[in-house]
This record gives sequence, C-alpha cells and structure tokens, in this order.
Amino acid sequence: MRFLDDVTVELVKHSASDTDVLWAARVSTAGEQSLEELEKDPERSKGLINFLMRDRHGSPFEHNSMTFFVSAPIFVFREFHRHRVGWSYNEESGRYRELQPAFYVPGEDRRLVQEGRPGQYVFVEGTAEQHKLVRQAMEASYTRSYEAYQEMLEAGVAREVARAVLPVGTFSTMYATCNARSLMHFLSLRTKNEQAKVPSFPQREIEMVAERMEAAWAELMPLTHAAFVANGRVAP
Amino acid sequence: MRFLDDVTVELVKHSASDTDVLWAARVSTAGEQSLEELEKDPERSKGLINFLMRDRHGSPFEHNSMTFFVSAPIFVFREFHRHRVGWSYNEESGRYRELQPAFYVPGEDRRLVQEGRPGQYVFVEGTAEQHKLVRQAMEASYTRSYEAYQEMLEAGVAREVARAVLPVGTFSTMYATCNARSLMHFLSLRTKNEQAKVPSFPQREIEMVAERMEAAWAELMPLTHAAFVANGRVAP
Amino acid sequence: MRFLDDVTVELVKHSASDTDVLWAARVSTAGEQSLEELEKDPERSKGLINFLMRDRHGSPFEHNSMTFFVSAPIFVFREFHRHRVGWSYNEESGRYRELQPAFYVPGEDRRLVQEGRPGQYVFVEGTAEQHKLVRQAMEASYTRSYEAYQEMLEAGVAREVARAVLPVGTFSTMYATCNARSLMHFLSLRTKNEQAKVPSFPQREIEMVAERMEAAWAELMPLTHAAFVANGRVAP
Amino acid sequence: MRFLDDVTVELVKHSASDTDVLWAARVSTAGEQSLEELEKDPERSKGLINFLMRDRHGSPFEHNSMTFFVSAPIFVFREFHRHRVGWSYNEESGRYRELQPAFYVPGEDRRLVQEGRPGQYVFVEGTAEQHKLVRQAMEASYTRSYEAYQEMLEAGVAREVARAVLPVGTFSTMYATCNARSLMHFLSLRTKNEQAKVPSFPQREIEMVAERMEAAWAELMPLTHAAFVANGRVAP
Repeated sequence: MRFLDDVTVELVKHSASDTDVLWAARVSTAGEQSLEELEKDPERSKGLINFLMRDRHGSPFEHNSMTFFVSAPIFVFREFHRHRVGWSYNEESGRYRELQPAFYVPGEDRRLVQEGRPGQYVFVEGTAEQHKLVRQAMEASYTRSYEAYQEMLEAGVAREVARAVLPVGTFSTMYATCNARSLMHFLSLRTKNEQAKVPSFPQREIEMVAERMEAAWAELMPLTHAAFVANGRVAP
Repeated sequence: MRFLDDVTVELVKHSASDTDVLWAARVSTAGEQSLEELEKDPERSKGLINFLMRDRHGSPFEHNSMTFFVSAPIFVFREFHRHRVGWSYNEESGRYRELQPAFYVPGEDRRLVQEGRPGQYVFVEGTAEQHKLVRQAMEASYTRSYEAYQEMLEAGVAREVARAVLPVGTFSTMYATCNARSLMHFLSLRTKNEQAKVPSFPQREIEMVAERMEAAWAELMPLTHAAFVANGRVAP
Repeated sequence: MRFLDDVTVELVKHSASDTDVLWAARVSTAGEQSLEELEKDPERSKGLINFLMRDRHGSPFEHNSMTFFVSAPIFVFREFHRHRVGWSYNEESGRYRELQPAFYVPGEDRRLVQEGRPGQYVFVEGTAEQHKLVRQAMEASYTRSYEAYQEMLEAGVAREVARAVLPVGTFSTMYATCNARSLMHFLSLRTKNEQAKVPSFPQREIEMVAERMEAAWAELMPLTHAAFVANGRVAP
Repeated sequence: MRFLDDVTVELVKHSASDTDVLWAARVSTAGEQSLEELEKDPERSKGLINFLMRDRHGSPFEHNSMTFFVSAPIFVFREFHRHRVGWSYNEESGRYRELQPAFYVPGEDRRLVQEGRPGQYVFVEGTAEQHKLVRQAMEASYTRSYEAYQEMLEAGVAREVARAVLPVGTFSTMYATCNARSLMHFLSLRTKNEQAKVPSFPQREIEMVAERMEAAWAELMPLTHAAFVANGRVAP
C-alpha cells in the first residue's frame, strides 16, 4: 500500500512555440510585415501575441500540441474529464488492468476545513488532530477497500466488477493532449490566482496538476504565457 | 445504507422528432419535393432518413435535443463523461453536497466472470458462491468506507477532502443532454447488439443506462431509430 | 435578380427556459433549497443564475436548445461556421440545388468606410457617391456572375462546377441549432456593445444576424439574458 | 489575374508517429507486454494498431498533431470548415487583407457533367466544347468580378464590404491543424475509394486536398494508415 500526498505531471511530447502563434496569426490577421521581420523584432512579436489575447482571437493559439503524463487520484480525473473541447485523454482502465494500491492522503500543507457558502468558500488550516484523523481514517479505509478488491479478484470475479469498492482517492494515470488555447481555458478555471480577472474555486488537488502544467507550458511558450497572465488569466 | 442493483434513467425534456431530421435535410440535400408532401408520404420520409443514415449525412440528426436524468454508480459516469462531442453534463458535486449512502451491488443476472483476452472477453455466469461473496464483500466495504466519510465530516473536515474514501460504486446523479447523432455514437459503443456491424464491448452497467436511453429515443424518433438499426447501429 | 440589404432570422423551434438552468444547477451546485421553492422565489432564481454566470459555471446553460432558420450572404455564413462548439448546421447545398439569384447590397445605413488599424478599426459613413458606386458595381457584377452560372448550367455543366463564379454576396439559407452557452459565446464575439467587458469587432452583417438571435433568446430566457448583460456580455 | 487548376497542400509542422498511438494505448488497454518490447516487435505493434482501429478505440489516435498549409478555392474551404471536431483553422481574412486575383478553373481531367440522382451521382467527361465554355465563362466572370472589387477599393470602400462580389472560386489560404483521428474522419467523407466500406461522394476539388493530406500522413504514420485502409477507411 502506498499513500501519496502529491501528483505527478510530465510533459512527454510537444510541438508548441510562440512562433506557431505568429505563423497562424500571420495568415489571417497580421499586417504587411513579414514573419521573418516579426521574428527579428521580439517587441513586435510580443505585441502581436498580446493583441490576439486581448481581443480574443483564439484560433491562432490552437496550432500547437502538448502531451502530458498525469498520475493523480480518480477524483481529480473526474473533474479533469469535464473539459471536453481541445482535450484528448487515455486513462488507465480498471476493466483491462488490475489497479495498483496507491492512494491519496492530504499532506501537512493541505487546508482541511472550509468556511463560508458555495461560491465564497475559504479554506483554513486544519488542526493537528484533524490531520491525524484524516490520515488514519483514510489509510484504514483505503486498506480495507483494497483488501475487498483483492478478495473478489482471487475468487475469480472480473476486474470491472470488483473495482466498484475502490475509492475515488485511488491513483490513476493518463495521457492528456491539449493545445495552448484549451490549456488556458483549463488553467483559468483550475488555478486560483491573484492576477485573475475572474474568480475561480478549484479544488486544491486539481490545482496542483494545473500548476505543473502551467510551469511546463510557460517554458515552451513564454510570450503566450506572459500575455495570458497580463490579460487576467482568461482564455482568448 | 442502500444497496442497488439497477440504474435510473428518465427523459425529463425533449425537442426531438423525425420531422426535425426531414426539415434539416430539406434545406440542404433534399430534392424538389416539398416538406409538406414528404410528411404526407411516410414511405418517402422513411426512405430519406434511411438514405441520410446510410450515406453518413450526419448533420441533419443534430437539430434536436433530449435531456435525461440519470442515477448510476460513479464508475458508469466515468465512462459516460468520456463522450465529449454533442453531450452536456451536470453532475451532483461532492464538493457542494454531502453524498448519500447508496451503492451498487450486481444483481443475480449480472455475469461476474470474464474469460478470454482484451477485445475478445466473454462474460459467463458466476457461481452462487461468487455472487454471495461479491454481495458480502461489497456491502461490508461500502459500509466501512461511508463510516470513514462520516467520521471525517463530523470532525469538521471539508466534504471535498473526506470524499476521497468513497468508492466508485457510489451512486451519483446527473442531467445529460444530447442530440440524436451524439446519442447514436454513444449507443454504437455502449450497447452490444447482434445487429451491429462493428463489435462493441460495453461494461454491462453503462449498457443498462444506454438501453433505457435507446428505448426512450426510439419512441420519439421511430424512423430515425429504425434506420440506425437497419444500418448496423453505426452513427452517421 | 433580387438585391437585398437585410438578413432573415427565424426561431423555428426551441426547448429553452430559465428553469432549465435552475434544474441543471440544482443537481450539482445549488444549496439545500428545493427547486419548487426556487421557482416561487424569483429573486432567488435571479440570484442563482447571476451567480452561475459570474463564477463561470457554464454547463448549466447547455441543457436547452434553439433552432434558427437564417438567410444571409455566404460571407456571413463563412464567419458563422467558424463557431464549432455547441453549434449544428445544415446549409443549402450548391451541389444539390441550383442557387437562386438573391444578392446582398448594403443599405443606406451601412457604414462603408473603415479607418484606423486592425483591432482599432472605426467605420464611418460613406458619401452618397460611394453608396451609389457600391450599389451599381455590386448589382452589375452580381448580374454578370449569375449569367455566367446560368450559361454553364444550360450547357450541361454540373452545378458544383458552375457555382465557382457565384459571389460570396449570394444569399444562402441554413438551420443552425445551439444552446444558451454556445449562443452567448457567439454573441460575445459577433455583437458590439457598450456594456461589453471585452472589445469585439464584428462585421456589421453577421452582427445583424446576431442581434436578431439575441432578441429571440432574450424572450425565451429573460433571467439568463439579463445575467449575460450584467456580467459584461462574456460567455460563462 | 491567375487561373489555377490545382490546389496546394504542405505539411508545415507535425508531431505524429505510430509510436504515439502505442504509448497512448499502452496506458489504457494494452496487455502486460512493455512498450519497449512492443517496439522491438513490429508485427505486434501492427497487430495492436489494427485491433484498436477495428474495435473503434479511437482516443489513442488523438495524441498527435499535424499542421497543414492549404491554398484552395473558397468553395473548398466552405466544405472543409464544416469539420468541427479535432480541427483548428486560421484562414486568410478578407476583412484584414486585400484578396489576390487567383481563381480556380477546372483542368482538362476534371469531369464536368453529373448524371443520376442525389446520393447516386456519377460524373462523366465533359466534351471539349464544354471545357472551352467553362474556361471562357469562368475567366471572363472572375476578371469582371475582380475589377468591380478593385473599383470599390479605389473609391475608398472597406475591404469587408467590397469583397461581396468576389466569387467562391477565389483562392484563399489557411493553416489547418488536426490529429490522426480527426483526419481519418475527414478522409472517410472527402475521398472516394474502392476500398471504402461505406460510400462517399466528395466534390473532386476537396478530394484533391484530402488526397495530399493522406499522402503526407501515410508517411508519418504508416502502420496507422495501413490499418485505416485495411478496415474500410472508416474512422475509429
């Protein structure tokens, strides 16, 4: 049994750069200046990308591709898969594979207590006792659930039936492919950020995934990322 | 604690009829005959819908709408939400609500044992002993998981944290809205049918949901449903 | 030959009301109050819809459906069809049908002259002379193009070949089906409005279509429309 | 004035290989064999890709990306843009740019005459006279339309207004980004092929674009392309 308080995000493949945005914009909306000139003129490139972001010319941000490997609890994937547009997924299947005993337990810095009303929740620190109770209750519950799973498998029951007892805190893995536009939409809802123009209330665990995706993306497309931040973290 | 061996599907709202298909086809592909004439000539309506299905003119099947209320285990919803195109979802939230203690236990007629290899699985009857073991293992495991959930809630832990121990066999509810084309795509993958032109290997529990959706849809759009069946249950 | 300075938009079918939003929100995010109570309490309904809009809970706005019949020039449809998500289209086909001689000529109130740079265009009144020139140049050009089309058809040339000479000012017709969320996204980009939080630069002709769609929608879903306006005309 | 009888398709960027499919399938559906083993065993890779195609496991074919530059007449783009899912577009804008005088005239091998009824059209050779008439009628019509466009531009009329007279045979350019799954769906409808399991009736000009895309794709992903062909040219 493994109890994990963190997620894994790896950029496994990409074809994504700020130049892709400039090329795509060039064919439709750019002026008379050639792309070669644009590339020699970083200030102008930055300005063009900023203009596209601000005026919501979204399509130039779609001609690129990033594939991430993600390992996270099922309850994170449940929220993740609600993002339908510009996202492709392949997740580990509990029908084809025996699921492994890895489960999520919140770390010490995870705020455990929520106050306020829907749309205005504030999370506050849990007490040491609450942390201890969560850890003990989760580890015991996970262990017994996995034992029930194993008991059924050993009795010859199909994986797809036996898995019903496994908790949504079980770790799963997937490949997720997106483009800069669909990623920005995801980030706008799944990160909480002081620079944001609009409020967002992500669950901390999906935000942990989102923050790592954002860091990887910011390295690939620094001008686009900067324009996203400068324009209030709203997808164009 | 409630242990259920069945799912719930209710058509709560619809704007869907075979005439919608005829109208849409009429604007683009139909010949010189007027729609009024078409409606007076059921054989010809049937023929036009069949032609559209056979030659994969898919768009005329999109100008309609059906909203279903579905209550099913989380593992069914996990598969359901992978259908991204032409589907809208609103599911009960474990962040905003305390989840209720209703869990899935396979009924007597659920085949429990799978044989063969991926892509060629065959499910066969479980023994009475296997059924008994599944029922006992599941009910005990579900009960302890829910107790751990309650224990954490009572200690003041946020719902979104405590829910991690709840199993994927927990019942959830949602509204799902689709059109005839997106429904046909869903049915082609999530039902197993002798008339089907292509193989499909749905998990029985999502097939139970799919079969009830299909029954409701067949009443609303009988000519379209008949053409779907006659053309090998492949979405146009 | 018909020369038209206006577009046609008719709501031909709908299943769309503010209550649809309340139901969908209820299943996922609403609090303990029942829907029956909500409906008796219009202020609260208004508040819930406004909260969903503000915090970008977009999915509750998808469980509804509107089908429009639109007649407009091809250059409008070219822009229209770039809206891919949550829209279904069936357009008159120049392969299956002989296209009719109806063409767009700007009316007296269409501003003909643009000043400024991309992203900052301002349209100003054309002179009477410019209007006269546009009308004469267009009508003459359209007429000769249609004659060439007819000449080829009469010589036995296939419609799909002969149509190449027809101008993008030719009127076409289509059915377009959307939901409130996809419509709001469309409106946010295809109307220009002082209340808008973000700039938009629609071509006037597609804005004419958008304005009529908005008027029809506002009657069906007044609370949702009001919340859209109050929140800066950005889609949730 | 340029009169062209051919289209241009260039693969400008890609991140696409058969290995991408194997990786994605591996995470969800593959058996116990490791990917390293798979790659050493080409027959098994071929078998796995063929199995995914046959049983319509479509998602593993989405984790890749191809960007094409396309130059073709507007009537081709009109059909192209009806493909909404898994496609991104940026097309030359007649609002931001003055369109160039390049127009489509069918070549000698384009069959000009259609016989039969909708869904059963057969195209047959045009006579030398018909070819001559088409060439003359088109060139004359295009020339006069472009003169009217120029006349209006010179009088200070905005580009977005003046373009209304330009024919759908005018060449435009775009970047189009897709993945193998969305490309296969496109090819299944926009090419006509004896191996195809289902009928398709593409207009020859979009088929010319599709054939070149297919050729470029077949080099990048030969096993996937072979499986597509072997399974009747239907997208999984």
